[in-house]
Amino acid sequence: MWPDTRLCDLFGIEHPIVQAPMMGSCTPALASAVANAGGMGSLGCGEKSASTIEAEAQAIRARTNRPFNLNFFVIQPEETDPRVLEKTREKLQPWYEDLGLGEPPSELPAPGRGFDDERLDLVLALKPKVVSFHFGVPEARIIEALKTAGIVLVSSATNVAEARALEDAGMDAIIAQGWEAGGHRGSHVPTAPFDGVGTMALVPQIVDRVSVPVIAAGGIGDGRGIAAAFALGACGVQMGTAFLNCPEAATEPARRERLRRATDRDTMVTDAFSGRSARAMRSRYAQEMESSRTELPRFPQMYALSGPIREVADDDDASFFLYGQAAALTRELPAGDLIDQLVHEAQAAMRTLATR
Amino acid sequence: MWPDTRLCDLFGIEHPIVQAPMMGSCTPALASAVANAGGMGSLGCGEKSASTIEAEAQAIRARTNRPFNLNFFVIQPEETDPRVLEKTREKLQPWYEDLGLGEPPSELPAPGRGFDDERLDLVLALKPKVVSFHFGVPEARIIEALKTAGIVLVSSATNVAEARALEDAGMDAIIAQGWEAGGHRGSHVPTAPFDGVGTMALVPQIVDRVSVPVIAAGGIGDGRGIAAAFALGACGVQMGTAFLNCPEAATEPARRERLRRATDRDTMVTDAFSGRSARAMRSRYAQEMESSRTELPRFPQMYALSGPIREVADDDDASFFLYGQAAALTRELPAGDLIDQLVHEAQAAMRTLATR
Repeated sequence: MWPDTRLCDLFGIEHPIVQAPMMGSCTPALASAVANAGGMGSLGCGEKSASTIEAEAQAIRARTNRPFNLNFFVIQPEETDPRVLEKTREKLQPWYEDLGLGEPPSELPAPGRGFDDERLDLVLALKPKVVSFHFGVPEARIIEALKTAGIVLVSSATNVAEARALEDAGMDAIIAQGWEAGGHRGSHVPTAPFDGVGTMALVPQIVDRVSVPVIAAGGIGDGRGIAAAFALGACGVQMGTAFLNCPEAATEPARRERLRRATDRDTMVTDAFSGRSARAMRSRYAQEMESSRTELPRFPQMYALSGPIREVADDDDASFFLYGQAAALTRELPAGDLIDQLVHEAQAAMRTLATR
Repeated sequence: MWPDTRLCDLFGIEHPIVQAPMMGSCTPALASAVANAGGMGSLGCGEKSASTIEAEAQAIRARTNRPFNLNFFVIQPEETDPRVLEKTREKLQPWYEDLGLGEPPSELPAPGRGFDDERLDLVLALKPKVVSFHFGVPEARIIEALKTAGIVLVSSATNVAEARALEDAGMDAIIAQGWEAGGHRGSHVPTAPFDGVGTMALVPQIVDRVSVPVIAAGGIGDGRGIAAAFALGACGVQMGTAFLNCPEAATEPARRERLRRATDRDTMVTDAFSGRSARAMRSRYAQEMESSRTELPRFPQMYALSGPIREVADDDDASFFLYGQAAALTRELPAGDLIDQLVHEAQAAMRTLATR
């Protein structure tokens, strides 16, 4: 039924559609409904307590005997520089004042704990079919323990280097998370909000460099996106937003209403909420926090100021060399031959998709 | 041969592949080679002189009798605020000093002129099959004059609203330019570097809202991308970077070498060169100019500072509602029904692509 069944075979599912483990929005009801329909249901565990995770996993099992996925964060606890805290407090002061909130906090809670031994014991006891990670590569001993228990492991990559690191570490499949994806970017190190590779460019480049199944994520909203993901070489998709308005999701009524009138311009990537880049609804706060750069002269007048620098500096330092995110796919062929080859490839890709 | 031939029919070409009009990199030799291979060759005219454009158009005609495309900017000349100029000069001072360049310029050249009457007369005399625009909607009288002369008109949209404005203005086809695309973003108003919709999310949303043919651009590097674009509902693609290493392109040897070792992480969007957002090679200059925001506390500690604001402020002001760029495609269905429908759609899309 699907042109590539590697992911379905690996996960033991009928349809290569993974419901994204959206913390706060996913529920046991959602995960089990997806599982019962032949997809992969997921539960975001993040910083939830062991007892909550246990109860939710049991609630899934009460509703389905199909495989499901538990998702966890991989975070290296990092302390914040006191000067950074002070500057941020100053920046937020007007917001706190306007909202009658008093002073911004002067002490921060302890950094997140990541996937520790308690988590490991819990997962080994619950034994879900699949465990997926976000924000990086889990420790080797954790990977080994989970694989020994027969659990299938997955993590997210936002670029080719991260995908290779995940394959090297023993992940059984890789989620290629493109720029379009809602939620926190799964980058292995924190990235700036302007930094991210789009799904169209990311998926084929990761497919070319790893041998495990690749799951495309980001900007996939209907069957057209699923077909496109397969055309790019993925053998499955992860979709999150598409499930937010399902009755089984925990999405609040006001947010359901907002989704009903969503446009392509509704969201933006910002790190001003959590300290890590995430795609969230465009808001005045996010917009102001991200736009607090120095304003520049109008196009094309800025060229007059950057021009001398470009002329003199090394390419690495200041070249204005314009090219796209799929540059690694560029071939050195005469243009006519390139067209011939593109046509041939496209036809072949389209024929492959028709395999039933 | 192609599942949707609307673009080929409109342009009078055999293959729905448009070579992007990359100023500085495209040449008459490149455009004519693409045209002779059955694609659409393009020449970027930007701020070139009338005599240069005329000579280049004649050079294309000397090599092919197939259709070609001339591309122009649509810019509203805007003066720069003197305070912005002064602040930018201060910011660039260290760069100028380090590079032995003296002081940054204190006067800026006149803003760009856009598509004026001289341009119109030139294009009417040259009569290319297709004229494409970048940065917006040309004036109504210009559109009318060009269409009366039988010229096919195209412009770029970076979001659904822009696509609708272009269709309303009479464009015959629309380029859906995704975040992945190299070069200047064709946004109708300048946008911040962190702002852009990825190709995977952009194309189906534009396809759903306009009736003219949609050309997908951004992140398409080989036949897989072309097949994916068709899966998303486009009936053609525009590719730029893919042609940069063709012998017919004007790409400098050092840059050809750089493309040979390109990765998915090579480029970034920055407005620090021209004053408008463009995807260009990652460089120290671009990186420094874009990163000069206040540093924030580490994840997840920043939550402690933004939390009170989120709790109190309106959703529009400061909600951290995480969702992706294809939210407009979200449907309100039980999760199981949604999976069924996604499967059905994907199968249908894949069958359609197999049409020969």
